[in-house]
This record gives sequence, structure tokens and C-alpha cells, in this order.
Amino acid sequence: MKSDIAIAREIELQRIEQIAESIGLPPEQIEPYGRHIAKVPLSYIDEEKVKKNNLILVTAITPNKAGVGKTTVSISLALGLNQIGKKAIVALREPSLGPCFGMKGGAAGGGYAQVLPMENINLHFTGDFHAVTSAHNMITALLENYIYQNRNTCEGLSEILWKRVLDVNDRSLRNTVTGLGAISDGIPRQTGFDITPASEIMAILCLAKDFEDLRHRLENILLGYTKEGQPFLVKDLGIAGAIAVLLKDAVKPNLVQTTEHTPAFVHGGPFANIAHGCNSILATKMALSFGEYAVTEAGFGADLGAEKFFDIKCRESGLSPKLTVLVATLRALKLHGGVAETEIKAPNAEALRRGLANLDRHIYNLKKFGQQVVVAFNRFDTDTEDEINIVRNHCAEQHVGFAVNDAFAQGGKGAVELARLVVEMVENTPSQPLRYAYDLESPVKAKIDKIAKDIYSAGSVVYSSKAEGKLKKIAMQSLDNLPVCIAKTQYSFSSDPKAKGDVRDFELKVSDIIINRGAGMLVVIIGEIMRMPGLPEEPQAIHIDIVNGFIEGLS
Amino acid sequence: MKSDIAIAREIELQRIEQIAESIGLPPEQIEPYGRHIAKVPLSYIDEEKVKKNNLILVTAITPNKAGVGKTTVSISLALGLNQIGKKAIVALREPSLGPCFGMKGGAAGGGYAQVLPMENINLHFTGDFHAVTSAHNMITALLENYIYQNRNTCEGLSEILWKRVLDVNDRSLRNTVTGLGAISDGIPRQTGFDITPASEIMAILCLAKDFEDLRHRLENILLGYTKEGQPFLVKDLGIAGAIAVLLKDAVKPNLVQTTEHTPAFVHGGPFANIAHGCNSILATKMALSFGEYAVTEAGFGADLGAEKFFDIKCRESGLSPKLTVLVATLRALKLHGGVAETEIKAPNAEALRRGLANLDRHIYNLKKFGQQVVVAFNRFDTDTEDEINIVRNHCAEQHVGFAVNDAFAQGGKGAVELARLVVEMVENTPSQPLRYAYDLESPVKAKIDKIAKDIYSAGSVVYSSKAEGKLKKIAMQSLDNLPVCIAKTQYSFSSDPKAKGDVRDFELKVSDIIINRGAGMLVVIIGEIMRMPGLPEEPQAIHIDIVNGFIEGLS
Repeated sequence: MKSDIAIAREIELQRIEQIAESIGLPPEQIEPYGRHIAKVPLSYIDEEKVKKNNLILVTAITPNKAGVGKTTVSISLALGLNQIGKKAIVALREPSLGPCFGMKGGAAGGGYAQVLPMENINLHFTGDFHAVTSAHNMITALLENYIYQNRNTCEGLSEILWKRVLDVNDRSLRNTVTGLGAISDGIPRQTGFDITPASEIMAILCLAKDFEDLRHRLENILLGYTKEGQPFLVKDLGIAGAIAVLLKDAVKPNLVQTTEHTPAFVHGGPFANIAHGCNSILATKMALSFGEYAVTEAGFGADLGAEKFFDIKCRESGLSPKLTVLVATLRALKLHGGVAETEIKAPNAEALRRGLANLDRHIYNLKKFGQQVVVAFNRFDTDTEDEINIVRNHCAEQHVGFAVNDAFAQGGKGAVELARLVVEMVENTPSQPLRYAYDLESPVKAKIDKIAKDIYSAGSVVYSSKAEGKLKKIAMQSLDNLPVCIAKTQYSFSSDPKAKGDVRDFELKVSDIIINRGAGMLVVIIGEIMRMPGLPEEPQAIHIDIVNGFIEGLS
Repeated sequence: MKSDIAIAREIELQRIEQIAESIGLPPEQIEPYGRHIAKVPLSYIDEEKVKKNNLILVTAITPNKAGVGKTTVSISLALGLNQIGKKAIVALREPSLGPCFGMKGGAAGGGYAQVLPMENINLHFTGDFHAVTSAHNMITALLENYIYQNRNTCEGLSEILWKRVLDVNDRSLRNTVTGLGAISDGIPRQTGFDITPASEIMAILCLAKDFEDLRHRLENILLGYTKEGQPFLVKDLGIAGAIAVLLKDAVKPNLVQTTEHTPAFVHGGPFANIAHGCNSILATKMALSFGEYAVTEAGFGADLGAEKFFDIKCRESGLSPKLTVLVATLRALKLHGGVAETEIKAPNAEALRRGLANLDRHIYNLKKFGQQVVVAFNRFDTDTEDEINIVRNHCAEQHVGFAVNDAFAQGGKGAVELARLVVEMVENTPSQPLRYAYDLESPVKAKIDKIAKDIYSAGSVVYSSKAEGKLKKIAMQSLDNLPVCIAKTQYSFSSDPKAKGDVRDFELKVSDIIINRGAGMLVVIIGEIMRMPGLPEEPQAIHIDIVNGFIEGLS
């Protein structure tokens, strides 16, 4: 089969004005970025339609290293729905340059189920990530300058929490010392960089209800504490306006098209292991404003992405999916059955059967939220019918809807079975109203406990002294009622990436809690999860190039 | 008078397709970024027209802190030329977010002589700076990863030269240590950040002849030295293709419009004090491809910007201006006459007369290059006729063309006098072919000596031991024949920002030489010039906001 980029290149794109027109968006009102991408003004969100139309969440079992193709399935389902006459729009996250040039590859889908132009979406796109990076580091520069200018006065801070971000995988930026050199070169400080998808500003962009709300959230970002122990916020620097100005375009959802010229909104991109993992509320609402069905995804496994989708994004916005699609692949299932990552392409019925425990656990969890679940089996070319039938029969036994998605190879036609199943469920047996995993009013530890035990099946939760200290700061600022955003490895229910399957009764170590007071959540760091990834021995960058005017190596 | 942004807001912009059409650019061939900005494919450069049409350089006397309005005069001249029936296009640099949020303000002109939409041009624009930042730091990440992955092998580097960049004024990033923490967090290293306009990649973007040449220059960036003392280049990492891909759109010039709807190309933005200070060769050639006259600027005073414009940009591209316009203001002249920065708005004829020595010195220097020079007196509202006449009469005595530019207050009509003078000179007594300040074949020290003594009037040049070491590395790599790019304070001919006027016979200290092997130049650091600026006590960011949907505080 052809590479993603070769397929992308063969498709003659429609001008973005045409795509806009196809959903009733006046072409002269969109803001084009090149011929095939546009930003859409926020005024086109229609809250009536947001309430009326059908939101579908796509999530996944615990993934293997290459991923299970959740973005591909999301796009596939939208294609399939359009194939059977439903007006469907997919709402996705934007890819980060870090993984694109590192290991995992882009995030624009694959095969005949892509959002296009994938070369632009996977590179700078409309500059949203760069705007977030710029806004984040501008705050740091202004904060450092405040401290520097006040170095001989009584003003100043006793503790700085705010760091910097870059959209790159660079392990050597995790822990840094800045401000070295002469006195005029700033105040020496131990600090570091996170990757841009972990920036609180990325979370704010994805949770903001409108521009005013964005500005308001920026104002409340916690930067550190004064010498009197009081919280020091962005508004104390008087720069929320300037930072909001840097985000004035980034806040608008981006419109692109799929391989079959159906509309797609791609906007915002926090990772689900180190941040809340969902595209923007505004883009999801935009998709619901123009699509009878809006298909959206939440990053990594359902333990991470879906939980945060429900407990953070849906609670914040009032959104509630009619159905959850749980993506599974033979490869990931075999991994959970004990097969090594290098061997997962080979048939192994026994391991596959063992691995189904991971699938079952995710189904069980999703139902706790009140969700109806269907399993989308994402087909790869090496998959055998015998193996597929093992999963099909298992789902039948469990009374869970099952459909094979073959849109990667066949486009929308390959997702018709899945689309029909989804429509049947939504029309006849939609999900119940959302039941969140925890109440906002519970104490912070109780909230973490709920997720740890009810979703991850942990036996116990322990806190580092650093985390205990943070809990005191949270109480002092009366921020106990914020939702929690767990940062944890995506490769296991536990914090041990090697513990596959349906691992249970482990100890979960909370090593730190980062107060995202502006975004409105508490980021709970579990174990040694890194908020700045590193690069592998052979980074993908080595394979990226332009050959005869065509980009190679993006996927 | 109204603020720049208030004026900008009043002007009803034409759609960028209309602007393109007005110069014969097929509207469907441009790549829009919103409704008023577009990138233009490189294929529209017409080398015949580049040779035939008239290039005008706008440079300045040694500036005061607020600048002398060189960008405003460049735009003014283009407006004035269009007013008198000449097809003129201005080609400018892009502003950096650092100064925009720091002190100096944007770089989109002022009053009724601006390029628009100034809010976008002064913010993220088409993302070119972000692409440069991203490309630069991606190289660093891949380099650090190479070193990390090879930490237990014989491969590896004995010296790393390549740092990082951010488009922000942040003194605390000048000197950093990275790679702290655990072994898996990289190799500890003393390093730092420059501002993006000082990135070698910015220089490459501005000097590239086409995409192939860009890629070739990227390949040759010097990152450090191997344990055997051999140069280690980007091509040794095998990532030039990936980095070129990150710059595939950034390399295309940006088309915008002036306050009078004439076309403008705004592209690339190295600073002239810490880099070579000119917009891209490609944008200048694009302007010449569509304009009978192309007006371009070189940053800061003529000692910095114009020298590098001639010796680096023109030599590299074959461009040769028909005329140089030297911008002077009463304020800057009085500063050179010994008046304090805080007093320069008050009339002071005596100081003004003394300050003319700075003007004369720049005229003398420009004539050495074979340039015809006219003085553009950039009028401010507090200027008196008596004082203006002192400058006018002085220029008459010196047989140098003189014209007042009042386009800031009046738009193109205020630049008609200047435009007529320029056309008369170009048609009757154009410049001679360029005479460069030094031969490329001369030894590096001889080249620096030529600039130091012939242009700056230094008495002597001394080298730090670090710089002497670099000279050996340059010789070892046979890079002696590269042009030199002096990084020096913009506030004086000397390296002392307080030494105003026509200061002479000073000692110039070369503290370091940075080998920009990819860009093809040697950056000679004079004294304590910082390649990462700091923020002032009251940063401009405090005044930037959105009020009732309108941005305030950009200028």
C-alpha cells in the first residue's frame, strides 16, 4: 500500500472556500491560510445546534508504541457517516512538531482516512502552537524582567513556578539553569522547558468558551508566590491583554478537509499523557454547529483521554457524547496478551485472547460514565480473518457493538459498517447523561483516589512530600474544587509502562501537582512521567526531506 | 495626531487578491494568509526585470533610541513615487516580537506611511519567525540527541557551537546550563539563547537564492567540532531535508499593502546590530520584478545596515542600488551634537549644527561605495522651520540632495518632494557600480580592518584570545574568503553607545567571531554587544491589550 503522504498527494484538494460553502459557511467570512486551510470566526458557533446535534467520542484501548490509529478511525467514521447520507464533521487535535520529527509521527490520520493538506497540518499549520509557545515564553520573559527590575527592592517572589515551553522533543531542556553570567544577565534560576502541548496556555486555548474567557483565564495563571506567600498571577504583571493579543487568531478553529472533501476542524493539541488530551471546546462546538454528527477524539487510551474528556472538557462545556467508539487493534491486544512490541504483527490467537482483558476493562470504565460503547476494530493489512473473528465473537458475547474499520485501505466505504452501527445506537440507544468519575466538590485526594481506583484499578495512592506541599498551597488558595488532570504513562493503566493488559492493585505515586489556576485544573504528575519528551536513537527527522518538490517522511 | 494603530484601523484594506492583481500577479497563484496577506511563489521572480528596474536603498544616520523612522521613510518614498506616477514597491523586514513587546515597538512604519495590516505584521504575521525559531531549535534537539545517543561510543563532539533562539527579549536566556537532572535528561552543557533575528537560519532565509540554495546553506551550518577537530555540520546529522521542510513556506516573500494600497513585500528580519540587517534577497527581487522602483531599507545607521547591505546582500545577489536615501531627524542630529536623549525634542540650533558631523560622516562613507546620496529629512511635529533650514542649507553647501519627508502626517503627498528628487537623480545621475568596502579574498583581519577604519574611523582593532582562536578555526576550514558581518552597538560608530557624533580613532575590540558557514559569513562580535536583548523597566507589553475588539499598544 502507498504511504500516507503519497495518498495525500494524489488527492486533488478543493479550495477551502468550497468546503466552507458545502456546510453553509459564507466563504467570504472565513480567513484563509493558503488555499486549503482557513480559520473560522467564533461567531459561527450556534449553541442551539451544539445541543441538538450528535457528539461521538472516539477513544482507544491502552495503545502500543505506534498507536492504534485513533485519529484514523475518527476520520474514518466521519467519512462513513457521510457515505450513508449523514452530515458528519470530524474535530481533531493539531499535531505537535515534537513527535512529527521524533517518533510517533504526525496526527492527521492515515491511508485513505486523512485530513488534508497533511503536510501543512503536520508542520506549522496556522501557527497555533507557535502562538502558544510565544505567549508562554513571553510571560516568562516578562516575569523574569519583573524580578530583575525589582532585585534591589522589597518587591519580588519567593518561589517561581512558571517555566518555558518549546514544540520540540528535547530531553536536554527538561532541567536547566538560566540567568547565568553578569548581573545584567538576569537572576540565576533552576527551571526547565515542557513541550508546548503541556503548556497551561494550550489547555486554556482548548477550554476557553470565547475570547473574553480566554483573557480571563490568562489573567489567573499562577506564576509563583510573593515573599509574603501570596499567589502571584499574570494579572499582577499587568500583561494579560498583551498575552491575549498573541492568541487572538490561535483561538479560532481551523477548517480543513478530509480525503473525501468532507469538512474537518483541527484545533488545539494538548497530549493526553501529560495534559488533558482533547481538541478545543470551540472546535468541537463548531463541528456540532455545522454537522448533524460531530466526531471527536481524546488522546491515548480511554483511561487518560476519555476520562479527561468527560471529567474536564465535557463538564466545562456541557457537551455530552451520544456514544463512545473504542478503538482496538490486533497489535495492541496482543501486546496486552504478553507479546513483545517487536512480535505483535505475527498471528497469536492465545495472546490475543488474553489481551482482550484490556479491552473489557476500558468498556467497563466507559460504561461507568453512562456511555454506550461500540468497539471499532481498526484493520491493518496483516490482520487475519481468524483473529478478527476472535475479537468479533468476544464482543458479541459481551453484548458490545463491534465493527471493522477498513477506511485506511478503502476510504469512507471501509467505514460504512461502523457508521451504520453508530447511527443505529445513537438513534435507538444513545448514552445516558454523563456521570463524572468524581464530584468537583470532593477533596483533591478523594478525586485522585476515584480516578486511581475506579478507572485505573490502583490499590493505593501515595503522595510525595512535594505533592503534599502542593496540596497545602491548593487549600490556601481555595482551589480544591478544580478538576484533576492526571499526567501518567499512556502504556499502562498503572504508572509502569511495561505493565500491560488489565493490571490491578498497584500503587500509584503522585510525585507533584501543578496548579493550572488559569486553565482551571490541577495537573497531577504520576511517577516519572516527563512533560518534555526525548528523541529516539533514529529520529524521524532523518527521513523527512523534499524530493522533486514533494515532501517525504511525514506520516 | 492619531496613534499609528488608530490610523491603521481607519483605513479600509483591499483584499490581497486585488493588490496582487494591481501588479499583474494572478490572484489565484498567491497563497492568502487571512484576507490581507499572502505569500508569493518564488517562480514570480523575473531576473530580467530585477536587472532593469531601479533599486533604492534607505539607510540612516546613527539613530537615537526611538529610531529615526527609516521604515516610515521607506514606505513614504514608495507612496511618493506612486503619487508622481511611478510604479513603486517597498520591500521591508518583518518585525520581531521581542522589541514589539519590549521597547522599540513594531516595524511597520508610522502615521500615514504604514504597511498593513500592522496588527498582524507586528504579531505572528505569516509565521516566518516562528518557522526560523522552530528550525533552529529542532537542529539543537537533534544535535543534543546525537550526542546523547553516542555518549558511550567513540562518536561525539569535543565542542558545541550551536545554541538556541527565541523571538523574545529575555536577558535570563543569554547564559544557561541545559541537560541537568538524570542521565536520561541529556548531557549537561553551558549554552544560551539568541533572539531569533540573530539566528543563522534567519540569515540563510534572507540570503538564499532559491529553495535549493536554502537547503544547501542549511547543510553547511557549522554545529561544532568532532573529537578529531573536524567541523561537524548539519549534513553530518543527515537532517538538512527535515529542516528545509520546516522552512518551505517561510522562504516565500509576503505581500501586503501600504496605507495607500500600494503593494509591499515584508520578508525576513535580521537585526542590523547583531546580524546583517536586511530583508530577504528574494523579497527585494520580487519587488524589482513588479515595480519600476523598489525601495528597500537596511537596519539602524548606515555604518551597520548599509555596509552589510552592500558588502553582503548586494555582493551575494548582484543587486546594486541606483541611489541611497539617508534618513536624518532633528532629534538624532541634536543627540550627536551633545544633547541628552531626554532633551532632544527641544530646539537647540547649536547642538544641531554640531550634530551634522554625524550626517556628513555617513554621506562620506556612502559615497565610498559609489553611491549617490540624498538626505531625507524625516519631519516630526515639534520640528521648527528654522531648524529644518539649518539642515537644508548644510546639505546645499555640501552639494547633497535634500528633501523633507512629511508622509507620516500627510501620506504619499508628504513625500512627493522626496520622490521627485529621487527620480531626478536616478534618471540623470545614478550611482556608480558598487565598490565594496573590502575584497572577499583579503585575510579576515584585513576585512575587519577595512570596515573599522574606512567606515567607522576606528584607530585600531584588537582581538580577544577567543577571537584569535576562531581565526585559526576559520583558516583551518578555508573560510577566510567569507564576508564579515559586524555585530556592534547601533548608537555609535564606535563600540561605546555613549560616543555620539563623528567619533574617531577609538579602539575596536573583537571579542568573538561566530562562523556562519551555512549563511556564508563571519559574524564579528564587537565589545559587549548582546545577541539576546533584555526588557526595559516598563515593557511595552503592559500597554498592549484588546479593548472593544480593537488592539491597543502596538506601534
